[in-house]
Amino acid sequence: MAQGTYVEKTYERDTTYIEDRITVDGADGWPVEAGRYRLVVARACPWANRAIIVRRLLGLEQALSMGVCGPTHDADSWTFDLDPGGVDPVLRIPRIKDAYLKRFPDYPRGITVPAIVDVPSGEVVTNDFAQITLDLSTQWTAHHREGAPDLYPEALRDEMDEVMHRVYTEVNNGVYRCGFAGEQEAYDAAYDRLFVALDWLSERLESRRYLMGESITEADVRLFTTLARFDPVYHGHFKCNRSKLSEMPVLWAYARDLFQTPGFGDTIDFVHIKSHYYEVHRDVNPTGVVPKGPDLSGWLTSHGREALGGKPFGDGTPPGPVASGEEIPAAHGVNP
Amino acid sequence: MAQGTYVEKTYERDTTYIEDRITVDGADGWPVEAGRYRLVVARACPWANRAIIVRRLLGLEQALSMGVCGPTHDADSWTFDLDPGGVDPVLRIPRIKDAYLKRFPDYPRGITVPAIVDVPSGEVVTNDFAQITLDLSTQWTAHHREGAPDLYPEALRDEMDEVMHRVYTEVNNGVYRCGFAGEQEAYDAAYDRLFVALDWLSERLESRRYLMGESITEADVRLFTTLARFDPVYHGHFKCNRSKLSEMPVLWAYARDLFQTPGFGDTIDFVHIKSHYYEVHRDVNPTGVVPKGPDLSGWLTSHGREALGGKPFGDGTPPGPVASGEEIPAAHGVNP
Repeated sequence: MAQGTYVEKTYERDTTYIEDRITVDGADGWPVEAGRYRLVVARACPWANRAIIVRRLLGLEQALSMGVCGPTHDADSWTFDLDPGGVDPVLRIPRIKDAYLKRFPDYPRGITVPAIVDVPSGEVVTNDFAQITLDLSTQWTAHHREGAPDLYPEALRDEMDEVMHRVYTEVNNGVYRCGFAGEQEAYDAAYDRLFVALDWLSERLESRRYLMGESITEADVRLFTTLARFDPVYHGHFKCNRSKLSEMPVLWAYARDLFQTPGFGDTIDFVHIKSHYYEVHRDVNPTGVVPKGPDLSGWLTSHGREALGGKPFGDGTPPGPVASGEEIPAAHGVNP
Repeated sequence: MAQGTYVEKTYERDTTYIEDRITVDGADGWPVEAGRYRLVVARACPWANRAIIVRRLLGLEQALSMGVCGPTHDADSWTFDLDPGGVDPVLRIPRIKDAYLKRFPDYPRGITVPAIVDVPSGEVVTNDFAQITLDLSTQWTAHHREGAPDLYPEALRDEMDEVMHRVYTEVNNGVYRCGFAGEQEAYDAAYDRLFVALDWLSERLESRRYLMGESITEADVRLFTTLARFDPVYHGHFKCNRSKLSEMPVLWAYARDLFQTPGFGDTIDFVHIKSHYYEVHRDVNPTGVVPKGPDLSGWLTSHGREALGGKPFGDGTPPGPVASGEEIPAAHGVNP
């Protein structure tokens, strides 16, 4: 995601998105179609990271191509500065903003990732991050790989929606509420809310291998992308510092378990993550200096969560290797 | 201490101080004399904290009174805002700056604590923080309590001066070099220097209970005041984040050992410490919001360093309770 100005007295996220959906029936005018759309992400962004993970877990790489923006941006938001010539090779634009303006010439809101672009018209279809991943699970089934897990099982949806809602308001967005609080009182309240929720999650995960029980679901994907950024960014930059993730034993083991599962840790670019937050948020970090720490080698240590049992992919199988060209550079991740 | 502007391309501390000394022979015009001088400190400041600790370890409370500035300040530096009416009850001034100007009407340098003021004239005698504590040990002996430790033993001075020099340049000042670096390259170099030194200290302290062997010396005091601020401030605010102190097992046990020794932890005001750095350095932390974390309860956990033997106070004894009126408020410290 991205906004222009961050620090406010009390931080409120603008949650109005382009809500068109890509569906089997094409009810909004956008039918599921292999090769037609391009998912645009930034590896730095936790909301985009969800889509990267889900796309990979489901094996949608061939059906839905992916454009990757660099970690930093200016007022014009995310750009394709990592690509040769600074232009996305498929969309042939330098900034994702161009696809927003193609669709809505006066688009008034934040230019955010993840966004899905209709390649033929060059127009953004949707940036509704919460719906995007659910639709990858439920609408794109015809293109799922063999052995793709069910990340949004019907039988669990009521409870899952509740859990995901609380994870969203208290944790995913909770860290931002701490970091962008412009006043002590707002920050103090945000900090308390965040750690109450993390304590709840620790308790929930003490006896369950995954948030919804014995298999990975979308709920885990959503929690994971925040946990992966916790020690490198949120602990210091956003003042979420009661303790590090690595000092919360249950959550830390849970996060490492996921990190070491194909489809999770292999999507995490710690260099992009740190660079984004510390370089872009000049109203939090005026110098733009990026911390060298923390030591991240702990991510690959044994987590012991196998003892809780469970079948990570349910009746399915883990995804294969990362698609060619989509690998995280060795120096940007934590590698076995 | 205090400076006007903090963040520079590469941070350099102005190390020119008022170098007058208070000595037995009064060579600089300032003879040691019980009741004549007032030590002015801020509990937030690590350089002043040294003097608070040494004064207490040596039992100089009666001979050398102490004025305490509040944790925050503006361009006019530290003030007596904690005192009734905002005026030091002995010096009868609202700001330590007034005592500097009384001595040098055009004083051009930073207004810093610790400072020792000559009460009759109201003039600052010295703010040479490194010399102040050594002189408390070597010049004020006539006023030491019975059982006062020898914090600067003659036989150890050569090695001690070397250790203290390295601790000063690499650690005490090293954390500031990280935090006030205005450019990535300068920060990266500062970070590496700091952690090389912390690794050296960890190794040195693995088999020695204290820096100079089996008893506490001035060298320990100097390292301690930086370590006490590491997790609450330097780790996040100054980006000294390879790991927390609490993740460096030897240094963390060493720091807890000292913290739990009379004269050390009972001088630490974590509220003042956090408030100072986060509220005053607006060019590092524009909002002035003070983090609620970290959880500090670990400071009182068992450290196991007794197994290394040693006699903390050498042939002396621990100091008694904190002098009346000089206690840290319960909510500001970590209490048994």
